[in-house]
Amino acid sequence: MKDLTKLFYPTSVAVIGASEHILKWGSIIISNIMAGGFQGEVYPVTTSSELVYGKKAYKTIAEIGKPVDLVVITIPAHSVQSVIEQCASVGIKNAVIVSSGFSETNEEGKKLERQLAEFAHAKGMNIVGPNTMGMANFKINLHAMFSHVRLFAGGISLMAQSGNVGNQIMYWAEQQHIGLSKFVGSGNEAVLRCEDYLDYFYQDEDTSVIIMYVEGVDDGRSFMEAARKTTAKKPVVLLKGGRTSIGSKAAMSHTGALAGSIQIFRSAMAQCGVCMVDTQSELLTLAAAFDSMPLPKGNRVGVVTLGGGWGVITADECEEHGLLLPPLSRELMAKLDERLPHFWSKGNPVDLVGQPDPQLYKDSVEIMASSDLYDAIIVLGIINSFKSVLRLYEAAIRLGKEVKMDFVEMDKHLDGMQSAFLDNIAELMEKYEKPIYPVALISPPDQPVIHRSEKKGKYSAMIFKTPEEAVKCLAKQFRYAAYLKKLGRL
Amino acid sequence: MKDLTKLFYPTSVAVIGASEHILKWGSIIISNIMAGGFQGEVYPVTTSSELVYGKKAYKTIAEIGKPVDLVVITIPAHSVQSVIEQCASVGIKNAVIVSSGFSETNEEGKKLERQLAEFAHAKGMNIVGPNTMGMANFKINLHAMFSHVRLFAGGISLMAQSGNVGNQIMYWAEQQHIGLSKFVGSGNEAVLRCEDYLDYFYQDEDTSVIIMYVEGVDDGRSFMEAARKTTAKKPVVLLKGGRTSIGSKAAMSHTGALAGSIQIFRSAMAQCGVCMVDTQSELLTLAAAFDSMPLPKGNRVGVVTLGGGWGVITADECEEHGLLLPPLSRELMAKLDERLPHFWSKGNPVDLVGQPDPQLYKDSVEIMASSDLYDAIIVLGIINSFKSVLRLYEAAIRLGKEVKMDFVEMDKHLDGMQSAFLDNIAELMEKYEKPIYPVALISPPDQPVIHRSEKKGKYSAMIFKTPEEAVKCLAKQFRYAAYLKKLGRL
Repeated sequence: MKDLTKLFYPTSVAVIGASEHILKWGSIIISNIMAGGFQGEVYPVTTSSELVYGKKAYKTIAEIGKPVDLVVITIPAHSVQSVIEQCASVGIKNAVIVSSGFSETNEEGKKLERQLAEFAHAKGMNIVGPNTMGMANFKINLHAMFSHVRLFAGGISLMAQSGNVGNQIMYWAEQQHIGLSKFVGSGNEAVLRCEDYLDYFYQDEDTSVIIMYVEGVDDGRSFMEAARKTTAKKPVVLLKGGRTSIGSKAAMSHTGALAGSIQIFRSAMAQCGVCMVDTQSELLTLAAAFDSMPLPKGNRVGVVTLGGGWGVITADECEEHGLLLPPLSRELMAKLDERLPHFWSKGNPVDLVGQPDPQLYKDSVEIMASSDLYDAIIVLGIINSFKSVLRLYEAAIRLGKEVKMDFVEMDKHLDGMQSAFLDNIAELMEKYEKPIYPVALISPPDQPVIHRSEKKGKYSAMIFKTPEEAVKCLAKQFRYAAYLKKLGRL
Repeated sequence: MKDLTKLFYPTSVAVIGASEHILKWGSIIISNIMAGGFQGEVYPVTTSSELVYGKKAYKTIAEIGKPVDLVVITIPAHSVQSVIEQCASVGIKNAVIVSSGFSETNEEGKKLERQLAEFAHAKGMNIVGPNTMGMANFKINLHAMFSHVRLFAGGISLMAQSGNVGNQIMYWAEQQHIGLSKFVGSGNEAVLRCEDYLDYFYQDEDTSVIIMYVEGVDDGRSFMEAARKTTAKKPVVLLKGGRTSIGSKAAMSHTGALAGSIQIFRSAMAQCGVCMVDTQSELLTLAAAFDSMPLPKGNRVGVVTLGGGWGVITADECEEHGLLLPPLSRELMAKLDERLPHFWSKGNPVDLVGQPDPQLYKDSVEIMASSDLYDAIIVLGIINSFKSVLRLYEAAIRLGKEVKMDFVEMDKHLDGMQSAFLDNIAELMEKYEKPIYPVALISPPDQPVIHRSEKKGKYSAMIFKTPEEAVKCLAKQFRYAAYLKKLGRL
């Protein structure tokens, strides 16, 4: 197994081709590292200026005269080989080659890339790329990449065979408050291949879930081996690009054994316990769920809802995804009877018949979560219902009614109520080691999917935008849990 | 066919059970009508106060002494019958019964509902509900309903057999700037049934697309008849609740012939040209697409993309949804060669290889849209790419670089560029009568799905959040277009 520790945790980074031309790669990368808060040493290397963003620039890598853990190379393809040789000569082991113009272009590029790979293999160098958007380690604020995103540090590590797919996933993670651990765009994979990153994330203690966007795999056997080993320890969520003949053509895909047929690929991944998803957004949501919630131990779902139609939609989705909705027991019925008005639904889904009572919401969710009948709870329509009353007051005030209410205070109060409800969900997940999926009735567009609580518990509550999103996520988490059970790991 | 014109276009509305108790139905409805900007007469009817929100209250409906086109009833179930009889005696033809406590509860409620239905049929009264969240006509600012939403008026009319599903769709429409024409929650359908609303929307000139959320259909034959007639003229997008046995149980569903099996229902709907969707969010997005874009005349798709990985994902999605990506012709290749740098992808997807050049974007999209080879164009990653440069400037400034730039001005300028690009897409759709689907690289959370242009053209540009959303939408629009073609209507 290759040792990528210094690649992901360098204490010193040199950027070759560094510049202050704001729209050029040499500037985009070094300004991202420096402004992103990296605490290690940063060395600009360039012949065209004395200073780069206030830092002394070096003419060559050798001139630095101090140990460099990682170099990031942004100069034209034809000059890369000699720079890599200089790096080797001063003992540098890790390089990210951002430069394009290699095997993705023409025969000459292919030749350059072969030469580079042979040299790196001979010297035992770890090379990311070429033709990559870069890499990042959010735990140490290292942003050696194109995307100027600022994320929460979390447990999800991301490997993408496409820069712009990786880019988008990171932007989403930023918006959704989803924490990432590491990112790497694997580019042309001249030296380090997707299975090497998988191997590294497998043993990385800061990684609890792995996301992969894969277009082609060169060595199916070793990829499967890495995947099988990894999934026994942590979930791997994978999106395959180039699933179809048109897609493969668009990818000008590699011709490895596994890339041939998506059916073969799918069944290979299922054998290895990899969770395959169909869309980019599912990729991120599912990974976040793995990172923030306990696994469902089985497929029996309890539903608590504020309205009937949503219960129906959710029940449909559950059945279509292989989940069960066992009826309430007598005992459970009695417990709910005590708390709910007499005209409640008396079944699962538990319909709270629109009662605007936060304590009732809390109690009903706990009654269901505490029952051995259910492995997971879906909570519909409560999130974001708290504030809908404000619109009623606004209308009344517009019509001239005197309302003794401080809107700002009320707004804060309602936010606090909702926040307490979500905090409680996180606590219930820990208390009963059971996932709970709140689905919002109305999502304000800027509401992130992860509720970041002030209380630091084991889990975080997520907010799902639709019942189908929650059910899909739960179904895939259940399938992974079943895989672990079969292995005797759960 | 029932005449529902005065129900949807009343010039006077009475609310029976009107009050100023802000959290009660009697207030929620009348404050929504009054604050919502309805220009007709509004008559509160109640025995408990003289004034409601500044308007003179009447003790009975008879006391009003002027014509009333529509009554909305919010009083308890057991008093509804006598009020309906009073309404009939003064010649009122249209009522919305919000009150619950009818057939959805117990035998007594069922009896009340039967009595009501018989009376209404005998008198030729149109009754919405009972047990409904109400109705709205956004063209005339009539909000006779629970949800205090304020929407753009548009061409989409919505019928929902569940109040909270309707409620959520309207909130989404508000956020997404999607315009609606009318809403009706059909409730228990004691008198007016889903096919009656379909019949009405069929002939309503303010309705260009119809959304239906259906749990059960009482009279399959007449529903199919109404559907077949309607889809020959305008698209009907339908989500079925209670698709599965658990779902049906949760719905305590009606037992009509069609409700029995989802397979039968699906094939019946396909025969009638109804577009069935699987999720609530798809329901709204597809309807918006029908309302804002021309139909694709065939299934040949051209893709213009700012990055490779997205092209692959989109190509996969297209093939999986029965769409084709025909290669570029020699002629098209030559036209694009003139505009693009020499290392462009030279195929469909057309990869613009990251060139930050708005004029190039515009030209490439038009070159593709103008070609007879393609029936629809997907444009990936250009939307919202304009502003990513701002982050680069911010980083540089944080590092002490002097940048002569007014951020506010720059922000406005970039917004303007993007807006112009989207306006141009709307114009190209009109010029070539061909749909264009822009997919955003990064969506700011508050970006609505409809781009509202100052220029009023025939079409509006939409902004899709993911390639899969765009492809799914396009595939369903194509299927509907194919249905119309078979009928000789396209």
